[in-house]
Amino acid sequence: MIRTPYLLFLGDAPDPLAAKVAQGIRDWRPDHCVGQLRLPGCEADMGLPDMTLEEARAAGAETLVIGVANRGGTFSATWKEVLTQAPSAGFDIASGLHTLLRDDPDLVSAAQAAGRSLHDVRLPAVKYPIADGVPRSGKRCLAVGTDCSVGKMYTALAMEAEMRARSMPATFRATGQTGILITGEGVPLDAVIADFMAGSIEWLTPAGDPDHWDLIEGQGSLFHVSYSGVTLALIHGGQPDALILCDEPTRPHMRGLPGYRAPSLEVLRDTALGLARVANPACEVIGVSVNTQHLSEPAALAHLSEVEARMGLPAVDPYRQGAGRLVDALAAV
Amino acid sequence: MIRTPYLLFLGDAPDPLAAKVAQGIRDWRPDHCVGQLRLPGCEADMGLPDMTLEEARAAGAETLVIGVANRGGTFSATWKEVLTQAPSAGFDIASGLHTLLRDDPDLVSAAQAAGRSLHDVRLPAVKYPIADGVPRSGKRCLAVGTDCSVGKMYTALAMEAEMRARSMPATFRATGQTGILITGEGVPLDAVIADFMAGSIEWLTPAGDPDHWDLIEGQGSLFHVSYSGVTLALIHGGQPDALILCDEPTRPHMRGLPGYRAPSLEVLRDTALGLARVANPACEVIGVSVNTQHLSEPAALAHLSEVEARMGLPAVDPYRQGAGRLVDALAAV
Repeated sequence: MIRTPYLLFLGDAPDPLAAKVAQGIRDWRPDHCVGQLRLPGCEADMGLPDMTLEEARAAGAETLVIGVANRGGTFSATWKEVLTQAPSAGFDIASGLHTLLRDDPDLVSAAQAAGRSLHDVRLPAVKYPIADGVPRSGKRCLAVGTDCSVGKMYTALAMEAEMRARSMPATFRATGQTGILITGEGVPLDAVIADFMAGSIEWLTPAGDPDHWDLIEGQGSLFHVSYSGVTLALIHGGQPDALILCDEPTRPHMRGLPGYRAPSLEVLRDTALGLARVANPACEVIGVSVNTQHLSEPAALAHLSEVEARMGLPAVDPYRQGAGRLVDALAAV
Repeated sequence: MIRTPYLLFLGDAPDPLAAKVAQGIRDWRPDHCVGQLRLPGCEADMGLPDMTLEEARAAGAETLVIGVANRGGTFSATWKEVLTQAPSAGFDIASGLHTLLRDDPDLVSAAQAAGRSLHDVRLPAVKYPIADGVPRSGKRCLAVGTDCSVGKMYTALAMEAEMRARSMPATFRATGQTGILITGEGVPLDAVIADFMAGSIEWLTPAGDPDHWDLIEGQGSLFHVSYSGVTLALIHGGQPDALILCDEPTRPHMRGLPGYRAPSLEVLRDTALGLARVANPACEVIGVSVNTQHLSEPAALAHLSEVEARMGLPAVDPYRQGAGRLVDALAAV
């Protein structure tokens, strides 16, 4: 578990997209954000107070979170200066980068000397069990996609925010690096050893109160041949009561797989539901979440209405319309 | 790649079952077996010449293979004596045990001093790629099961033996520890990092001659919630042209999962074929392999004939009847 609140490190982000991890934390956990630390040339801005390490520490920040991608797979000299000072200034450091904090001897020494922690959330920090498939109390919702990167995490976070606003008990359960940095905990599923994948998700979504919903962050797609095994482990470890189908309707082919077309929503529904019912016979598909960012407003609305009529399920773009109707459907389960 | 031929270490196996790895090597790769090394009290016998390390080395053995399970998760003093002598006697050592050779400092020193290798086949020795899904030349066959441990490896090995007897080009591709020790190479799929599972199988089953068949060792089951993700990665990484359905008809519940019933062969067929066609639209189900060890001969034959009629596919128990009819079906693809 990563200690909050955070100081968001934006480094020398060349553009706002490079700081999308920081943006995710800012959007979904604003209460976790004390301030931002930017280096000369930084072109990203979270609209938070700019702070030095000392100022942020005085304001209560516990962890310096690297919210920006590094270039070239190494920490630059300007980054290193800040990062190596952070532990003695009283900070843990958290990172989701491929370049590991723990592989940098200077950072390791600095953290050890100051008695602070380095969190590389790309790697599992827990010895997960093998899944036992035993039914658990409480409810779980999982977003499954026609493809990777179609908005599954966004959908779950938007639903959690809506549910909290309605005082419905709900917890977003992170299964990827960005999600883990947003919430401060979770399972980096793509880095888990094959035998323990489903068990890690059972561990992540334990028995809960009968009316509590875990909103599990989806990964990959049953139809994406590079990562489909991860998705099935998520379905069987998560034992979802409710599935949400996620789509991005403008892709010419599956992400990173020229020659592969995404399945229809009908095929996704039938395949995912059949497999989900192995672990939870009561599972239902309750809605469709469509990422319409590449459609105009009229085209998006027309598409959503066509999908809704065709599938007989509420179909929304939570970014344009909020997740209210998906939460309505969840509440009716 | 493990160097052959082997001296099979049977240790102090308390019964033949404890030496089932050795038995698998003896059954399927008799040409790899120079002899066996047994300690006092050993109750297993592969019918091979009993040899000392020196005798086996003189007879050409390159690797001492641990063909027996250890007790209590440690190497006993009697095992240690033989194992630590093996490198200086000219042997590599190969093991599929959870207890790793590389974690024993005495073995590591002995191997380093003698310039010999320690193979822990439970751990990946290769940095596998992420799967790219690009179609590969050559043909591939995969056994998929209603449950774990229903005879998938046995089916593939029996088919390989039959195909070699018919001079059909075929290669068993090991995906588990026993299979790797039998063939000397393969991917320990259950120990691979999630993101690289499908890629490891693409690596294991590369482009081949158009008439060459890879017979890929199956793992887990799409319906076994602990390991289903591993199975789907195998299906999508393997791009099979042919599937064989495997069943053990007498199980009261899924292996290790009380409360879970195995699916019907029809449900297995439809689910596995739909998913396999994502990666290879030409994939077909060509036969059924039934493990009838818990049925009498008349009951087994009656069951096979009922399955054959119901499924419209050749249904055999390769242990009782050989794999000839499955190979006939493969040859017709």
